Parts: sequence; C-alpha cells; structure tokens
Amino acid sequence: MEITNDTADEMWLRASVMMRRANHQTFEVNVDATGEDAVSLRLRSEIVQWLRAPLVSDSAHATVILRTVTAQVADGLKLEGPAADEGWHIHVPALSEHEKGKSSDPVIIESPSTRGLLYGFYAWLEGAVPSASMKPQDKISSPDQPIRMLDQWDQSDGSVERGYAGESIFYGRWGSNVHSEFVNFPDRGAQDVFRGDTDRLIAYARFCASVGINAICLNNVNVRGYAIRFIQDPWLSRVAQIAHIFESFGLSVFLSVNFAAPRIISGLSTLDPCNSDVQQWWDKTVDRIYERIPHFGGFVVKADSEGEPGPYQYGRTHADGANMFARALARHGGTVIWRAFVYNSHTDWRDRSAAADRARAAWENFHDLDGKFAKNAVLQVKFGPVDFQTSEPLNPLFFAMKHTNLIMEFEVTAEYLGHQIDLNFPLPQWEQMASWLVEKNVPVSKTLGLYAPNPQLTGFAAVSNVGMDWNWTGNPLAQANLFGYGRFCWDNNIPTTSVSEQWSALTFPRCDQDHQKTIARMLDQSNEIYKHYAAPLGVGFMVNRDGHYGPGPDDYEFSRWGTYHFADRDGIGVDRTQSNGTGYVGLYPEKQAKMFENPNTTPDDVLLFFHHLPYAFRMKDGRSLIQRIYDDHFEGAARVEDLIRQWNSCKKFVDECRWKEVSHRLLLQQANACEWRDEMCTFLYRFSGISDEHGRKINR
Amino acid sequence: MEITNDTADEMWLRASVMMRRANHQTFEVNVDATGEDAVSLRLRSEIVQWLRAPLVSDSAHATVILRTVTAQVADGLKLEGPAADEGWHIHVPALSEHEKGKSSDPVIIESPSTRGLLYGFYAWLEGAVPSASMKPQDKISSPDQPIRMLDQWDQSDGSVERGYAGESIFYGRWGSNVHSEFVNFPDRGAQDVFRGDTDRLIAYARFCASVGINAICLNNVNVRGYAIRFIQDPWLSRVAQIAHIFESFGLSVFLSVNFAAPRIISGLSTLDPCNSDVQQWWDKTVDRIYERIPHFGGFVVKADSEGEPGPYQYGRTHADGANMFARALARHGGTVIWRAFVYNSHTDWRDRSAAADRARAAWENFHDLDGKFAKNAVLQVKFGPVDFQTSEPLNPLFFAMKHTNLIMEFEVTAEYLGHQIDLNFPLPQWEQMASWLVEKNVPVSKTLGLYAPNPQLTGFAAVSNVGMDWNWTGNPLAQANLFGYGRFCWDNNIPTTSVSEQWSALTFPRCDQDHQKTIARMLDQSNEIYKHYAAPLGVGFMVNRDGHYGPGPDDYEFSRWGTYHFADRDGIGVDRTQSNGTGYVGLYPEKQAKMFENPNTTPDDVLLFFHHLPYAFRMKDGRSLIQRIYDDHFEGAARVEDLIRQWNSCKKFVDECRWKEVSHRLLLQQANACEWRDEMCTFLYRFSGISDEHGRKINR
Repeated sequence: MEITNDTADEMWLRASVMMRRANHQTFEVNVDATGEDAVSLRLRSEIVQWLRAPLVSDSAHATVILRTVTAQVADGLKLEGPAADEGWHIHVPALSEHEKGKSSDPVIIESPSTRGLLYGFYAWLEGAVPSASMKPQDKISSPDQPIRMLDQWDQSDGSVERGYAGESIFYGRWGSNVHSEFVNFPDRGAQDVFRGDTDRLIAYARFCASVGINAICLNNVNVRGYAIRFIQDPWLSRVAQIAHIFESFGLSVFLSVNFAAPRIISGLSTLDPCNSDVQQWWDKTVDRIYERIPHFGGFVVKADSEGEPGPYQYGRTHADGANMFARALARHGGTVIWRAFVYNSHTDWRDRSAAADRARAAWENFHDLDGKFAKNAVLQVKFGPVDFQTSEPLNPLFFAMKHTNLIMEFEVTAEYLGHQIDLNFPLPQWEQMASWLVEKNVPVSKTLGLYAPNPQLTGFAAVSNVGMDWNWTGNPLAQANLFGYGRFCWDNNIPTTSVSEQWSALTFPRCDQDHQKTIARMLDQSNEIYKHYAAPLGVGFMVNRDGHYGPGPDDYEFSRWGTYHFADRDGIGVDRTQSNGTGYVGLYPEKQAKMFENPNTTPDDVLLFFHHLPYAFRMKDGRSLIQRIYDDHFEGAARVEDLIRQWNSCKKFVDECRWKEVSHRLLLQQANACEWRDEMCTFLYRFSGISDEHGRKINR
Repeated sequence: MEITNDTADEMWLRASVMMRRANHQTFEVNVDATGEDAVSLRLRSEIVQWLRAPLVSDSAHATVILRTVTAQVADGLKLEGPAADEGWHIHVPALSEHEKGKSSDPVIIESPSTRGLLYGFYAWLEGAVPSASMKPQDKISSPDQPIRMLDQWDQSDGSVERGYAGESIFYGRWGSNVHSEFVNFPDRGAQDVFRGDTDRLIAYARFCASVGINAICLNNVNVRGYAIRFIQDPWLSRVAQIAHIFESFGLSVFLSVNFAAPRIISGLSTLDPCNSDVQQWWDKTVDRIYERIPHFGGFVVKADSEGEPGPYQYGRTHADGANMFARALARHGGTVIWRAFVYNSHTDWRDRSAAADRARAAWENFHDLDGKFAKNAVLQVKFGPVDFQTSEPLNPLFFAMKHTNLIMEFEVTAEYLGHQIDLNFPLPQWEQMASWLVEKNVPVSKTLGLYAPNPQLTGFAAVSNVGMDWNWTGNPLAQANLFGYGRFCWDNNIPTTSVSEQWSALTFPRCDQDHQKTIARMLDQSNEIYKHYAAPLGVGFMVNRDGHYGPGPDDYEFSRWGTYHFADRDGIGVDRTQSNGTGYVGLYPEKQAKMFENPNTTPDDVLLFFHHLPYAFRMKDGRSLIQRIYDDHFEGAARVEDLIRQWNSCKKFVDECRWKEVSHRLLLQQANACEWRDEMCTFLYRFSGISDEHGRKINR
C-alpha cells in the first residue's frame, strides 16, 4: 500500500495513538462516569468517536462497562502507590462466549478516577487492536510515577528551542498562524502568536493521554517575547482555550514564567521574592489565572541560569524564589516546578578548580536547600549532572535531597542524540538512569516517592519532540521516543523490546510481524549505536556547537560553558576524583564515591567523565583506552549500515512516504557517523600518535 | 572639550573629511570648470559650502583659481600614468604676500579633469587646514591606480555582511528606514528597502572623494532578496538617486548582480552565458539601467563560489560568463568586474591532495583564461590566495595573468583583523602586499597597469567598513583605515606614518601635536601587534568560526572550507611545497618558488602557510618554532597594554565621547589578546608538551 503525505499524519494519529476501531465488534457501552467534568465529557466523546457502528455487518456483540470505583475496591484490585488513583482494571471475558453471541459477561474497565478510566479505555482499545478480536484478560495497571510530564520548549515566535520537527504546533509567526478554530483574539496582528490549529492540539492531547502523560508545560523555560505575557489577558484567554483541550484529556497544564515578569510587565523596581509588592503581584497574577483556568497546574521556572534572572541578585536562595510562587499557587492547589539546571555559564576554561567544575553546579546550588522548599514546590533535576549527554552518571542531588519533592528530567527531543536525523531510541539510557540504586536495592525511580514531603508531587518530566512536520517528529521513527517516554513514565521497568514492538505493531499495522520486529530491533539497537560513535566514554560535549549535531571535538574546549575534555598528547578526560581532581566524586555517598574514585571500578561508559587517563590505560576488557575509542567509533559507524540493511528489508511492507523519509535520514546518519568516526579518530591520533591496532585507516 | 554623541558624527565629517573652513582667509573664487556635469555642479556647491564668508572679520584675502587644463599643459606638469587625468597641480604663493594683503599671485588649482579639480580642491583645503594659514607650495599629484574602488557589502535587509559598525547606511529593515529625503517609492512597505538618509550618503560620498576614491559598488556581492531586483524598477529608480549623489562626487557607481537574475526575475530556464535569450535579457537590463544612470559604472559579479550560481553549471568558463556581461555593458562604456574568489567550499578535510588545497583555487580556476576576457572586463583578485588573513603570500594569479585587466582586492572592514574592536590599522600589510615584486624591481602595484589590455581598468578595490554607528566605523580609530585606504590607492608607497599622522591631525584638531603623534603611533603599531597574537606565522584561519573574532584554533580544522593547520603532536603547518606538499609553491615563478620551497628562505610571517614543521624547527633568529609562537603571543598581548597606556595619556586632549569609546574597545582588545595568547599557547602545549623557555604560565 502507498500512503501519501496528506494521509500520513492522520494515519499516525490513528495507529500510533492506538485509536482504531475493532473491526468485528459491536459495542453497547455503559458508562458510569457520568460527571460533567472535562475528562468525563471527553471520555464519552472518545467512546462515541472510536466505538461507533462497525464497518462489517456480521460482527459479534459485546457489552462494555466503564465505571469508577471506590478506594476500597481499588485496594482490593491492588492498585497501589502514590498514583493508584490513575490506575485501572480491565476484565475481558473469554472470546468463545462472544463468538456464540450469548455472553452475559461484559467487558469491564474500572478505575478510582475518571482519568484512570480514560487510560483504561485507551489500554483496552490498544489490546483490542490490531488483533481485531478480544483475548480474554484480567489486567490491572497503575503508573509508577505520579507526575508524568512533557515540557514544550515552544516559543511565542513559532520556533521550538531544540526542536527538530518544524515549527511549534502551539504558536506561529504572524502570517503562518491558522486561527481557524479559535475564538477571536482582540489583536489579529503580531501579538496574536497562537497557531489556533485545534485539531492538531486535540490529536496531540489524545496521544499524550493514550500513553499516560498527565501534565504539560505549554511554553519554553526560557520565557521571552510575548510568552512573558501569557499570564495576562488577552494572551491568557487563549492559553485557557488550549488548557481546556489538554485538561479534558487528563493533563494538568503548566506555564513557564519569567522571574522578571513583574518588572517587565508592570515596571516593579525589584524582583526580590521576599518583597511584599512582588509577592502581591504574583498573588494577583495567579488569582487571575485560576479565574480562567480553575484546574491550572502551576508554573515551571528556570531562574539564575544561562542569563535568566533569579533570586540570587537579591541575595535570596532558590528556595526563597520557589516558595514565593508556591505560596501564591497553594491557595488554588497549584504547584511550582523549579529547575535545578543552574550553573555558571561564564566559566573560564583556564580555571581547573573544583568550583569551576560544571558537574558540581546543581549540587552546589541546591543541596543545602533540602527541606526548605514548600510542600507544593518541586525541584526538577536533570538525570545527569551536566546536560543530557549520551552517557552521564546520576545527578548526585538524587542522593542528597530526601526532603524535597523531586522530578527527574529527561529529553525526548534529540538535542545531543542526533536531532531526529540519526535513529536514536533512548529508552535504554532512560531506564539505566532511572534504575541507579540510591539505596540498597532501591532505584532512584522509587526513592523519588519514598521520602518526598508530598509523594504525589514527584515524577518524571521530559522535553517533547513534536512540531508541525507532516509526521510530527521529523523522523517518523522518532515518534517511538515520545511513545516510549509515556510507557516509561507509567512503568519504569518496562522492557525496551516490549515498547518498541508495541509501537512498531501499532504504527505499521500493515507490515507483517517479522518486519514489525525488524523495525523494533532497529529502535532497540539505535541508542547504543549512536553512543558508540558520538563522543567517547562519557567525556561528553565533543559535539558541534552549532546546534549540537555532529562532531566538534574542540568546539567547547576553550568556551565559557564549562564542558571540557582536556585531551593532550598524553591522555584525555576530566579528573573529578577526590584525590587529584575536582572532588566531584565526593558528592556521592561513600559506596558510589569509592567506585568512581578508581578508574578500574568506574563503569566504562562514564570512565572519561570521572578520569583523565593516558591513551595506553588498560580497560577492563584488556584493550587500551585509545583502541577502545577507535573500536567504538568504527563499530558505531559500521552498525549504521546494518540499520540501513534492516530498513531496506522493510521496503515493501512500509508505505512509500515513510519509507523514503526514514531512508533519507539513515543516509544522513551514515554520513554523520562516518564524520564522527573520522574526526574523533584523527583528533586523537594527532594527539596520541597511536595507530589503530587493526590497521584501519585513520586520517593523519 | 566635551563632544556629545549628537555632534560627534558631524564632527568626524568635518574633521576627518577635511572640510573645515580656513578661519583667517577670505577667498574670492574663480572657477573655470563651468560645465553642467554633475561633478562641476558639485564642485561649485562644495566651494560655496566650504569657502563662504569667514567668521573672523579681520581676515586676509586671497584669490583662488580652479581651472581645467589641456593634456599638453598636464604633460608639462608631469601628470603621468594611466590616471594622469585625475591628477592636480596646486600653487600657493608665499604667505608673506598675503599677509600684506597685496599679493597679486592667486592660489591656483588645476587639473585635466573636473574630477581632478575636485581632488585638488580637497587637497588644498586639507593643506590650508588646520594650520589656518597658507604655506607657500607648488605641488602636483596624480593617483597610482586608475580604479580606486570601495565595495559595500550592504544587503537589502539593512544588514552588512562582515560589517561591524551597525546597520547599512544605504538600506534598512522596513520600519528602520528614514526616507525623509527621497522621492516616493511606489511601495512604502517591505519592498522599499532604501534607508533614504541622503545627508549621510552625501557625507559618505564626500569623504570618498576627499581621499580620492573614484568607484563604488552599492551592494553585497552575495546578491539576495530584493537586491536581485535593484536592476529593475521600481528599485532601479531609487538606485539612480543614490548613484547621482555618488557620481557628483566623481565616483562611478556599480551594482553587484546575481548570475541567476534572469531565472529569478523572469523565469528563464537557462542561465547559460552563451545562450542568446540570456544575453538579450542582460542586454535589455543594461539598456534600461543606462537610461536611468547614463554614467553607470557596471557590474560586480561573484559566480560559482560559496553557493552562488555561475557559468560552470552550463559547461562554460568564467571568461564566457564575464564576457556576456562585458558585451552588454560595452555598448554603453560600462565595465564588468569579475571576482576571482572562486573555490570549492565543500572540501573534505580528509583529502590531502593538491586539488583540495584551497590556496590553489583561484589559480586553477583562472590562470588558463588569461587573455580571454573582454577588454572591458576586469578580474578582481584578493591579495592573497586564501581570504584576507593576517599574513598571506601574494596571490600567484598576479604573476600569471598579464593579459587580463586586474584589480587587487583588499578588505577595509576588519573581518579577520579584529572587527573594529581590536585596533588594527592594516596599511602596513596592504603596502607589503602591493610591493611584492612581480618582476625584477617592479612591484605588483605597477605591473597591474603595465600589461593590462586596458590599463585604465586596473586598480584596487576594498570592502568598506562604514555603518550607521554614531562614529561611522564602530571604533572611532577605524575611520583611519578607510582614510588610509584612499591614501594608499592614490599613492601606493605613501609612508604609514605620514598617513596616520595626517589622519590623527585632521581628526583630533584640538589635540596637541605630541598626542596627535601618540595616536598615530598607536595606529602604526597596531597591525603588527594584532598579527603577533592572532594565529601564528601565516598558518591562518585559527579564528573563531562564529564571525571570525577571537581564537578558535580547531574551529575550521574539520570543516568544509579548506582551511586547515594540521597541528599534531609533532608539528604544525600546511605543506605546500612541490617536493612533499600540495605543489602550490610551483604556481609561482622559479625565483619565488625556490624561496618558498625551502623553510629556511621562506619569510617568517608565511612560514607555516608553506610548511608543516616540527615544533623544534630552528627559526632564522635561532629560536625554536614553538618558542617563537609562544613569544609572539605573549608579546602581542603585552603590547596591547602599551596601547592602553598611550591612549590613557591622550585622555585630556580627546573629547570624552570618543575617548571612552576607544578605551572601552581597548579593554575588549586586551581580553581578546589574552584569550588568543592563552588558547594558542595551551592548544600547542597540549600537542607539543614543550614548556615556555622563559617559564611563563601556559595553562595545561
């Protein structure tokens, strides 16, 4: 079959969002979620949309009951944990009874909450499709993380910071906006930055709900231009329209705010979070937002980082800053999410002191504040101490802050991971990070909710990867990353293979099972392949500084960003040991610190993150450090050819449109992988003078 | 005295352009240039403007006669060479006669042309000021180069490519345009890209004339956006208005055109220069231009370079391309100027073959075409084979193309020379390049006119450095570069010191002579100082690729631009020898080739341009290569402190506004010089492992 560009994105919605009608069933639906709240209304609308009369007339018949249950019943079903309310139970009777048309057992979907019912309904739809029949099942599920959030880095000018799939689906440059479905905005000129493509927003909200995402922040954390004024009319009324769409799919809606908004909007002379004028300004602002968006989630704030304003310039702490917002929001049940991505972005590369080690920054800025944040404040901490590199150790704040609500932050958009040109399904890396043990046998994914003052306010957040591209994500296969992120938030230990196979089956329903699995295998291998050719052994930031795609071995070496590799004629890597280096290792508890202090016990993939080592250093597998780097880069580049072969084998099973788009990108990836291999090998050969043991060509 | 921002640019016009009234003279003027041509009209207007009744009543009295003379008389005056027509003779009688008020000898200014009369008038004004008295003199002068051109890299969106002094004085973004003095443009919207600040354009044209510039190209050689349509109405009518201003000051006006204009504007399916449809398109276009601008100079064309379209894609040569324009222009006496800056901008850094050596590119593309260009075609060749670096050898095309009209191209704007932040008066470098001997005792500045098919169509061109900044050039002292360029075009051997002193005296008239000389000394030293700290020994292109300011030792190393240093643990530099390298050396005549083939006879400042040498290589002065590089960088950075000390000593003699502006930039230069020193030393130390002999700190 051929699918044209025109139909392809609808197809993705229908397949990847798992919303296709079961062909051989007629359903009589019985919903006791009869509330008039937005989610109940949406649920009924979804039922009507997806369970209307079948195309095939000789279909069987079934009754489906969707019902909310009491906490007691939920306990009986073993829906447990801080997010038990959002779990569900599905009971599907044996197929044979239906076939006979005489079953009296209905399909039952139940949950303590309407939101959970929505998730259960999508889960059941997914189970019913594509097998086109109902297998008997009795299944319960509840999410591991209470907060399962997406951050849009969409900007009011229509661009998306670190977006690789076209313009924003939320905002657009004046002239590129649609506005076909929005009510009037007072100013139809440049101030009206909203794209107004309601269909697309509904599709996105549905997708989010279908994979269990329950919170979204609508704008970039670097809040510029008109986005600063989103908290005010007339922008606020348009934000409210968007919020109502997402809320109806069970997502709490957040806005990023600019710490300097009181000055920028109202000319206040101070932004001191302890100043009562400033506090009152935010109180009033928050009140006004809740008038328009009664279930508003709250604010996301990036302060005192990369040039953004913040509490430091008033001699206040980040807790002071966060608590100002928390107080204003608490009166309405809202939450402030405060980003821990705070560091000195004017580092002097000459400064080799501990203070200049960027990896220490989040810890230095925040560990003292543990316990000082309000109950409705959440600290959002990137998984690693630097910035979403291909390999990083766990951010030590996750060990240090046990009296603070924490969100662990990921990046679905492929900023350092190949820009959705190179295939890179990062679920293996996310799972590796989430399963770091913070205590004996207790991974960070669990400790988040164990100690927090308010376990409901812990979870995961990630930067989204969608844009106006016909397939939403630039690379059609990068849809899997968004899908996988939702699955991962719900089940922190879900096997990569299971997610990739689910996604592949749902997205390529006309592909045979073997080739669906081929595509799943491509996804499964992709993160490791990319890691092999892009920067060696955790040293990080050897990327091209023009956007972070492709190699730039020295691009950050003499920069102000604090990310260096220190390669010289003798060795490479950053010494972060306590004995000789920046002492970063000492920020971890004793056991971890001991492991990282010694290069022989440091995991290979963060070896150069912790140590500056000679090129002849013996790795655990007996290879020299330089040989291992050469090997990794040659292997990574070679394995891209495998990906191409695998994809070629799928040609006749995949619609031409998507097949060509992916093929084109795989060729770009191949060129990129070769460039990485060649630049990195030459770069290090020029320093080391050591040839490849296997005699492969390294340019001089 | 204090000068505010408001008055400062007017001040610059008046001082630097040398147009101030002589305070103690009353003049009776007698002009026989009574023509109605634009230059005659302008000359009379200038006389009225600058010689009107004196402010001081007890003034002396003099008669000034301005007259054109016949060729015979000019011969008698020894006005010689291809540009003799533009020369002048000034006779000023002894002062005493005037003081007595009884002189019968008039001041005489004479020239074979009205243009020369204008130059002579300005030269006399300059001589009369600032001494405020007329010293007796009898002086003749004629320019060395017939073409003395400025290229504006101003773009129709108001930006200036490689501009460091604000927006374009010619064009502006819609909304930033002035249009106060232009006649109506049909579209007052985005298409009307003309700034319309006539006062400023007149001031600029006057400045150009006052230093002898006689040609200008109004738009960037990379012709984009509406600039493609400047050759058509309604844009053409606005261009004509600008042209008339510049023509009245004796400048021929050129436009850069896009080779693909017939396709872009009229949808022609081919751009083949030998196709008659294309030729006719250009014929008609040229006819239309000459209807509006009867003395139009012609076109400047960049083709087949850095992504610009050109004749190659139709299997034609650059001569074919140039001659198509030449033919169309010849019918009206116009000229096409064809840029030789043609190279493959998609070089593979892995390719070490001769063909990939960018230094060979201009020669490879053009040397075969010598003698094949039309008589009214000119080939514009950058002074060096790469791109306006701090040190380059002479472009070998100047040896090879003796049957082609050549322009030697310079850059007044400080693209690689410090962005008009760092002080850099490049006259010493220009003179060095212009005095390269092409034949025994004959420098390139002379051979240009010796062999050309049309010696009138040879000369110098340079990219201008002006913008909308209050002082025109960002750094007030960078005005000297534009002034110096004019002086240099006129007199290729004018001593640097004389130019800097002239400029300083004219620009800082209220400064005492000692401090005027201090400022001149700062200028004189500045080019060498910059060269010391920015990239070693001619290797070039170790600049930051984000705009070319500051160091980026590896920024171009793995790029597609063909500019590499090949530093490794053993040595640095590009081997361009015939014996071992790319053979570039062989493009020079035997004598030069022999010199460059041997590192011991290659001049130090292009040593690494020609040779890849070990760090321990012994330089002519006995130092090792690496020690010389360390020394240069330390010395360069240290000497910036000298500049600061010198400038500080001028504080009370210079208006506060300019003093602060320069001071601020000197501090930025100091930081930049230290950054260059530290990055370059560390970069090479990490490769070489060799410490500084003098024990100065090099970061590890």
